[in-house]
Amino acid sequence: MKNTSFKTLVQDYKAVFLDSYGVLKNHQGLIDGVQETIDFIRDTGITLRILTNDASRSQEEQVQVFENLGLNGLKEEEIITSGMLARQFLELKITSGKIAYLGTESSANYILQTGLEHIPISDIDLDDLDEISALVFLDDEGFDWNHDINKTVNFLRRKNLPVIVANSDKYYPVSNSDVAIAIGGISRLVEYMVNQRFMRFGKPDSQMFMYAYDELNETGNYDKGDILMVGDTLRTDILGGNKFGLKTLLVFSGNTRSENVELKINSSGIIPDFTANSILE
Amino acid sequence: MKNTSFKTLVQDYKAVFLDSYGVLKNHQGLIDGVQETIDFIRDTGITLRILTNDASRSQEEQVQVFENLGLNGLKEEEIITSGMLARQFLELKITSGKIAYLGTESSANYILQTGLEHIPISDIDLDDLDEISALVFLDDEGFDWNHDINKTVNFLRRKNLPVIVANSDKYYPVSNSDVAIAIGGISRLVEYMVNQRFMRFGKPDSQMFMYAYDELNETGNYDKGDILMVGDTLRTDILGGNKFGLKTLLVFSGNTRSENVELKINSSGIIPDFTANSILE
Amino acid sequence: MKNTSFKTLVQDYKAVFLDSYGVLKNHQGLIDGVQETIDFIRDTGITLRILTNDASRSQEEQVQVFENLGLNGLKEEEIITSGMLARQFLELKITSGKIAYLGTESSANYILQTGLEHIPISDIDLDDLDEISALVFLDDEGFDWNHDINKTVNFLRRKNLPVIVANSDKYYPVSNSDVAIAIGGISRLVEYMVNQRFMRFGKPDSQMFMYAYDELNETGNYDKGDILMVGDTLRTDILGGNKFGLKTLLVFSGNTRSENVELKINSSGIIPDFTANSILE
Amino acid sequence: MKNTSFKTLVQDYKAVFLDSYGVLKNHQGLIDGVQETIDFIRDTGITLRILTNDASRSQEEQVQVFENLGLNGLKEEEIITSGMLARQFLELKITSGKIAYLGTESSANYILQTGLEHIPISDIDLDDLDEISALVFLDDEGFDWNHDINKTVNFLRRKNLPVIVANSDKYYPVSNSDVAIAIGGISRLVEYMVNQRFMRFGKPDSQMFMYAYDELNETGNYDKGDILMVGDTLRTDILGGNKFGLKTLLVFSGNTRSENVELKINSSGIIPDFTANSILE
Repeated sequence: MKNTSFKTLVQDYKAVFLDSYGVLKNHQGLIDGVQETIDFIRDTGITLRILTNDASRSQEEQVQVFENLGLNGLKEEEIITSGMLARQFLELKITSGKIAYLGTESSANYILQTGLEHIPISDIDLDDLDEISALVFLDDEGFDWNHDINKTVNFLRRKNLPVIVANSDKYYPVSNSDVAIAIGGISRLVEYMVNQRFMRFGKPDSQMFMYAYDELNETGNYDKGDILMVGDTLRTDILGGNKFGLKTLLVFSGNTRSENVELKINSSGIIPDFTANSILE
Repeated sequence: MKNTSFKTLVQDYKAVFLDSYGVLKNHQGLIDGVQETIDFIRDTGITLRILTNDASRSQEEQVQVFENLGLNGLKEEEIITSGMLARQFLELKITSGKIAYLGTESSANYILQTGLEHIPISDIDLDDLDEISALVFLDDEGFDWNHDINKTVNFLRRKNLPVIVANSDKYYPVSNSDVAIAIGGISRLVEYMVNQRFMRFGKPDSQMFMYAYDELNETGNYDKGDILMVGDTLRTDILGGNKFGLKTLLVFSGNTRSENVELKINSSGIIPDFTANSILE
Repeated sequence: MKNTSFKTLVQDYKAVFLDSYGVLKNHQGLIDGVQETIDFIRDTGITLRILTNDASRSQEEQVQVFENLGLNGLKEEEIITSGMLARQFLELKITSGKIAYLGTESSANYILQTGLEHIPISDIDLDDLDEISALVFLDDEGFDWNHDINKTVNFLRRKNLPVIVANSDKYYPVSNSDVAIAIGGISRLVEYMVNQRFMRFGKPDSQMFMYAYDELNETGNYDKGDILMVGDTLRTDILGGNKFGLKTLLVFSGNTRSENVELKINSSGIIPDFTANSILE
Repeated sequence: MKNTSFKTLVQDYKAVFLDSYGVLKNHQGLIDGVQETIDFIRDTGITLRILTNDASRSQEEQVQVFENLGLNGLKEEEIITSGMLARQFLELKITSGKIAYLGTESSANYILQTGLEHIPISDIDLDDLDEISALVFLDDEGFDWNHDINKTVNFLRRKNLPVIVANSDKYYPVSNSDVAIAIGGISRLVEYMVNQRFMRFGKPDSQMFMYAYDELNETGNYDKGDILMVGDTLRTDILGGNKFGLKTLLVFSGNTRSENVELKINSSGIIPDFTANSILE
């Protein structure tokens, strides 16, 4: 593990995968100077992809959010979300019936638009579940926790069907010190209640990296050794990148601080190839 | 494991510990005929205790609830709740500051009346936690799940203090088929979020049985071999009774049905000494 | 989930992925009639791959073992083992130092031949670990359990380095009723001792399927919908196939019996698209 | 949590419970000066008990071991081991058949002498298990790990019976830096293989404390508030003492060092009432 400069290091690679939160932005908005780094990546001719476990927005909406924050020039195809993997699974495996979901109507629109009808948990009738063919945990908003989490538990006690989690993160930051429970956390409670394990999409799962990698190779010719994965979180970005066979760079602009990086690496056993303060230098 | 008659079996013992839900009552109310069995126990001179993980009511309130259901003659001292263990812990270990809680005001009154001030999570100020000395998960009602569970997570990220769970059950039944998540289940979500394990009170923990056993021996002279533990749930009543050294009777009037008892015993490895259809015969 | 005939079903697909143990062979040897089914698959023009978590033998050795059992005509490139994924990881990520391992010398030869020196745990010097750059759990034979598992624990307490498990199975069958602990099981004990999670290769992990899928598409043009995954185990073959987006067939010639399939599916929540008695019909 | 002097603090209590390893001795033998502290406790009229998870020796043998190390004057009744709880369970609950065990013959003699025959796992016949009525994990020596752990797994796959772990520790220290896997660790591997949870005796379980407390009250009159629990390990001594309602003192002469105590307390949520460097001052 060598402490290094991102801008020097990245020039050894043909492509770079960037995590979003903690690398490009934080709870206050865009990290100052990120626009210049993105421009540098483009000018150097390095291919860019952003890999995010945020399943609540489509590629188009993600680009829009970055523009609202002040980061311009991202293309839709440069954004890879865990929700896209969830959508792919549904397209391939769920070909009839209705898809039940926990989340907002807008996130449901983007992920569940596979030709099948989708229905929020609050609207399903527990006594008439025949037509429901899958359940998706989408995001932590858009429903009443007390009522709808209990209803989800009883739904799964009555019917056995594929259950998928579109974002495996347990929480997301809402301020410098505070977090909010993400849908990945809520899904753990339901797993505990019904004593099952659901299908989870998103980093560190290999499928997230495979999706980006396969898509990259549709337009170019990239080996795993040509790609640098950059993230701020050992258990998602670095573990996933390592296992997939990419070189990994841990940055200190988000979840992991340089003061306790050694402790975190030792206690987790997850070792990045490189570290850097941020992608700004 | 022998299938047997409760009324015959119980006569071999000086005392009997009964679980409440699934033995005395179910989601429809009192189980028909239970009054007669309780009277039989008294007439035979057998000492009776009811051991329940319901921490939401005091002994006095529990007796009142049974009377409302139609079961008369229970005495306050015959009821042992997991909440009494939580209260004992607080009395012994938390001697200053304020006690924060998730639950209803009435459950807080019964458990937290140890001379210290108690304050619901919704009322605490995350920027001024100096005076808070403990956190108690009391019951699943009396708070807004979305807001207050998230607030509890951030509270525990900011301050390290003793956390106790007054009822370790993950759910409770609300109808023949459906359940509701109990505070023991909610506490698991918070444990997962903050990566800690809290102190849990209630069956199958030995302290529940010890509390009843010690209290019994203040007025009489009972060995562990003199006591029969009766319950409907392998993982709480039977596991706890076995480990404490009591003889155990599993009844089929609640969570466990005779059709799948063999499967449940084989997959759990928890083996009751006896089984019976109910305590009615 | 429909009960079906394998030979009828498979004709709807361009390729079939077969698990080895429980599908092609069992503890007594080759399953009678499997040669004829393999011939049928070839005659029908369907591409065949065998996906196995057995990391103890190379592709060449696996073909030889099948021939010794009486199954002829398999080609080396038709065998995909979890060990090949472990080897790929080592090639991409571990480029200097020596690789320590638990297993036999022959399994080490096949997986660790990446240009680096490899050394059994029994030969390493705990006071001189500077040169060791990774640890691989290969198989359950070739070492003294008491001495070398303890030595592995202390090795990992002294040095933090990438640890990979080349076969994630917890056990393998040795007779009709008995099993033996596999290296995946032993690795769990070491994980528990050092409080870390290692990198595991093999089904149900998506990388196993991705490896086979990518390799298939180097010589042809296959969509995920063109492939049928066949296995006898819900938690590896079916879960992995489902999540990767393949259609899945559970057969009853191995770990799962038709009598309790419904129970196993309900308790695991892992649902195959089809079931069949075996691949013989 | 206040840093304090043991000798000053202990005078506020009528009884003191001491952990053995890390408090009285370490891997090099008796901690220098401990004899003087034990004499001080006696001279001050404070009742003493030693609570240890070492199940491999009887009270008599434990006293002998302390004398060999140079600590004189301990009485048999002052030693409480987790093995005594295992023996009590067997006496109360297993009244017929033979008891199978993993461990040495001498540990079996002390724990299993309840009138029933005991038989090492290596001697049982897997095809004739009718007479075996319980299985006990005693200690990590006295058997062949490879052969006998596998045999234990297959034994439990064939017969469902009470399984108890006489020492729940996962490891014990063998030098300043190294540990050895204890029987509690081995039992976890078997639990994982057969997908069950066994009954574990020893700290932090309440029964260990209850046993000592009840025995104390047979000869005197002690409240929980009269007792100080002293140990070097948060997860056993301090967690168990806290939950039982005792005041707890963490010492830095064993598993926990003063440099990282704050980190360990914060990550575990287990908070001692007091800390001290050792029991020497």
